[in-house]
Amino acid sequence: MKNVLILGCGLLGSSLVRRISKKKIAKKIFIFEKSKLNIAKIKKLKLSGTIIRSLKDGVVNSDLIIFCTPMSEYKNLILKINKYISPKTIITDIGSSKYESSKIIKKFLRKGINWTQSHPITGSEVSGPEHGKQDMFEKKWCILIKDKKTNLKHIKFLNSFWKKVGSKTVVMNSEEHDKIFSITSHLPHLIAYNLVKSAQDFEKIQRFDLIKYSAGGLRDFSRIAASNEIMWRDIFFDNKKNLIKAIELFIKNLNGFKKDINLRNNKSILKKLVQTKKVRYKIIKLKQDINKPDFGRS
Amino acid sequence: MKNVLILGCGLLGSSLVRRISKKKIAKKIFIFEKSKLNIAKIKKLKLSGTIIRSLKDGVVNSDLIIFCTPMSEYKNLILKINKYISPKTIITDIGSSKYESSKIIKKFLRKGINWTQSHPITGSEVSGPEHGKQDMFEKKWCILIKDKKTNLKHIKFLNSFWKKVGSKTVVMNSEEHDKIFSITSHLPHLIAYNLVKSAQDFEKIQRFDLIKYSAGGLRDFSRIAASNEIMWRDIFFDNKKNLIKAIELFIKNLNGFKKDINLRNNKSILKKLVQTKKVRYKIIKLKQDINKPDFGRS
Repeated sequence: MKNVLILGCGLLGSSLVRRISKKKIAKKIFIFEKSKLNIAKIKKLKLSGTIIRSLKDGVVNSDLIIFCTPMSEYKNLILKINKYISPKTIITDIGSSKYESSKIIKKFLRKGINWTQSHPITGSEVSGPEHGKQDMFEKKWCILIKDKKTNLKHIKFLNSFWKKVGSKTVVMNSEEHDKIFSITSHLPHLIAYNLVKSAQDFEKIQRFDLIKYSAGGLRDFSRIAASNEIMWRDIFFDNKKNLIKAIELFIKNLNGFKKDINLRNNKSILKKLVQTKKVRYKIIKLKQDINKPDFGRS
Repeated sequence: MKNVLILGCGLLGSSLVRRISKKKIAKKIFIFEKSKLNIAKIKKLKLSGTIIRSLKDGVVNSDLIIFCTPMSEYKNLILKINKYISPKTIITDIGSSKYESSKIIKKFLRKGINWTQSHPITGSEVSGPEHGKQDMFEKKWCILIKDKKTNLKHIKFLNSFWKKVGSKTVVMNSEEHDKIFSITSHLPHLIAYNLVKSAQDFEKIQRFDLIKYSAGGLRDFSRIAASNEIMWRDIFFDNKKNLIKAIELFIKNLNGFKKDINLRNNKSILKKLVQTKKVRYKIIKLKQDINKPDFGRS
């Protein structure tokens, strides 16, 4: 690969820049970033990419374009790059939900151009290029989306690209992807936001100083609930169909726990509490656990 | 202080044994443990306490008795020690909820005997004496409960004891304690159990392999949901009144999020997502954050 264009240079975009540069995966890295604050940070960090002002320069000179912006910016950017892009260019993104965003892509991307979606399962509760790391993708899963019209050459290219970046890859369709991540990532994040919101409401009503005593559980949720709000709004809206179902399942189960507690139903509650431990063992067995918390971007 | 009796030598009991011995806080440490497996572990670990078979020996020879068992065992143990105990002996416990357990204590403990409740805010998702650490309480809050009939001398003694153990102490009444911890600890644990249960249900219905992709959020909840089930059942039942209220507030808020997502209400959801970040900043500012996850026992 000669050149790559990174659209959006926040946490993950800047991590890609660092990695691509370190491993010499591309000759030239073009960076397009709309936030002036981020541009100043990128310059200060001396990231080894060329910051471009005109999208045209980046698009016509790159073999690979990676969208690293919030998903809500895809449409605008697509409309801007349509006239410069060639069918040979490989386009991907790192968005955390796929089905709805693929509809936007299909609707607005010029006919004959391919976009093959990726989803690296990594991230952090902090945002911005200053928090990026070259090993952000190391040993993490990266999902490649294969739907009916996916260009197989592009999948092959991206498979090799993400492996160079350090990821383990797996291929699935967008519907399956969105179902899985609605429950392993999107619901957990929503729940964390909701728990912190409930604590804030409680604090207002009771006028207690809760935060001082947050070490007993709340603290660890607050970490997830500090993730980037634009990104998460986009994910929640984009994966609405699956997320609503997940919320409903969650509330149904929570009402089950409430009933057990109300009736002091020893047998029923113990069965549930014991059962959930098994997931933990499975996660440890699959070496998905780590010592440090690492609340994936999704 | 001469001698101390540790009733129940699991994660926290064994941590107290280690600390008391290391800092020479007591001359002799008596350990009473009913699980044969734990006794074998304690012997193998060579913890420097005397394992006693008869409660009488420990009770009559100790100035301080610390209940480190699940709360559901208090009643049985109280009935067994009642005839040996003297009004001079200081009794405390490390239970995570206070109001209901204080009623059990009042009801069954012999008249004239004092029990002053403590709650060190520490713990782990792993149980058993092999996981105890001498610095388990270091720089952690320990709540001392002061109700109408609390013996002030005993509070003073325990205040000094917990400081020797490494904790920061704070005094509050049992009602306030249970309200605060229903939201900072008991609800978060219930939510974690409920999230993992929902993921298990989803896995059964969809036949997807979720755990492989748990790094996006679910993994971090599974850690909390692996905590000791007996202890947590006791806490959920004991703090039922406040926990039910917390669950209801949580479901109300979650339905609010669901509505935002359904209607794609950008303004409303962003307001909430931004607002929750503030809790995180407050936690970091109060130095309640840590690098490693440390899901407190409560």
